[in-house]
Amino acid sequence: MKPPPPVPWSILKQETLYQDSWRTLRRDRLRLHTGEESDYVFLETAAAAFVVPQLEDGRIALLRQYRHPLRAWVWEVPAGSLEPGETPAAAAARELAEEIGGRARTWRRLGAFPTAVAHVVDHTTYLLAQGVVLGEAKRELHEVAELHAVHPEDALRLARGDTPAAGGSVMSAHSALALLLAEPHLGVKRET
Amino acid sequence: MKPPPPVPWSILKQETLYQDSWRTLRRDRLRLHTGEESDYVFLETAAAAFVVPQLEDGRIALLRQYRHPLRAWVWEVPAGSLEPGETPAAAAARELAEEIGGRARTWRRLGAFPTAVAHVVDHTTYLLAQGVVLGEAKRELHEVAELHAVHPEDALRLARGDTPAAGGSVMSAHSALALLLAEPHLGVKRET
Repeated sequence: MKPPPPVPWSILKQETLYQDSWRTLRRDRLRLHTGEESDYVFLETAAAAFVVPQLEDGRIALLRQYRHPLRAWVWEVPAGSLEPGETPAAAAARELAEEIGGRARTWRRLGAFPTAVAHVVDHTTYLLAQGVVLGEAKRELHEVAELHAVHPEDALRLARGDTPAAGGSVMSAHSALALLLAEPHLGVKRET
Repeated sequence: MKPPPPVPWSILKQETLYQDSWRTLRRDRLRLHTGEESDYVFLETAAAAFVVPQLEDGRIALLRQYRHPLRAWVWEVPAGSLEPGETPAAAAARELAEEIGGRARTWRRLGAFPTAVAHVVDHTTYLLAQGVVLGEAKRELHEVAELHAVHPEDALRLARGDTPAAGGSVMSAHSALALLLAEPHLGVKRET
């Protein structure tokens, strides 16, 4: 596949509309490829790591976590933002320990993607942790969650959007992608 | 799987930090399950539909689109926000027509998920369009893109994060998830 064309737009002015320790909302004034000027608003947020934790017995450790933005409980894999200077692998190991008290025998990087590329700048790395042993979690104040160890086939069913199987809760798109990326490595027979 | 517990937090106050026609940045003052008060900032944005377009010959129509937030060209499937009152299926058909001039013989709903549930409220529906015939695209000013028809195996390789295969461009997480959800229906032999 040939490389992409050069960058077609230039930035004339940059403004910060809102900023806190976790996110910046920006408005850029652009010169487009047509010569026209145009505003472009987007959110910058921290990079994140998502971990699929597979236990020694093959089951997947999932969280059903309360998420205020949705006012709902959502199926998720352990995940979190990278701290300054932290690598995705280090953040993944830290989140695994904090959120489910987990320690892994082996790690595999599954891939890394930006998400909502039209309006959010982030960078998400997905990892698989295997041979995970569970211990005591140290969740933060905003992390209200239940831990469920489920068979890989059931976790993949949630990742494919099977809500009845999910006790009425949906899974997050990031967690669904993490599980589908992990699928070839989970030792499950795949439907073709 | 049993249903989730009740909603544990209540909203004491709601503030709008920023708003335009496309997004609202909110700050809610919450009463947590512990009795403590806490602020929670999150972004609300429009629901979206993502379409995997499979042509009559089995190939997948992908866009390599310039995305200003990343200042990069990104692999994507056709996608867009729902207009007021529009269903995901109607938005998908409209975006397929606008972005690649596509019309499909058959449609399949692949699933629907919220995305970055810690800090963004959205709702994304993924669909598969098959028997797609290409026509003239009517892209908007901000949609600078190349159309590539690729073999399903190559599209899935991009979805699994194979950047060398991608001419140096990454794929968006939403498009990767759309392709992996579509995988069982694309008529490809799956690696186990």
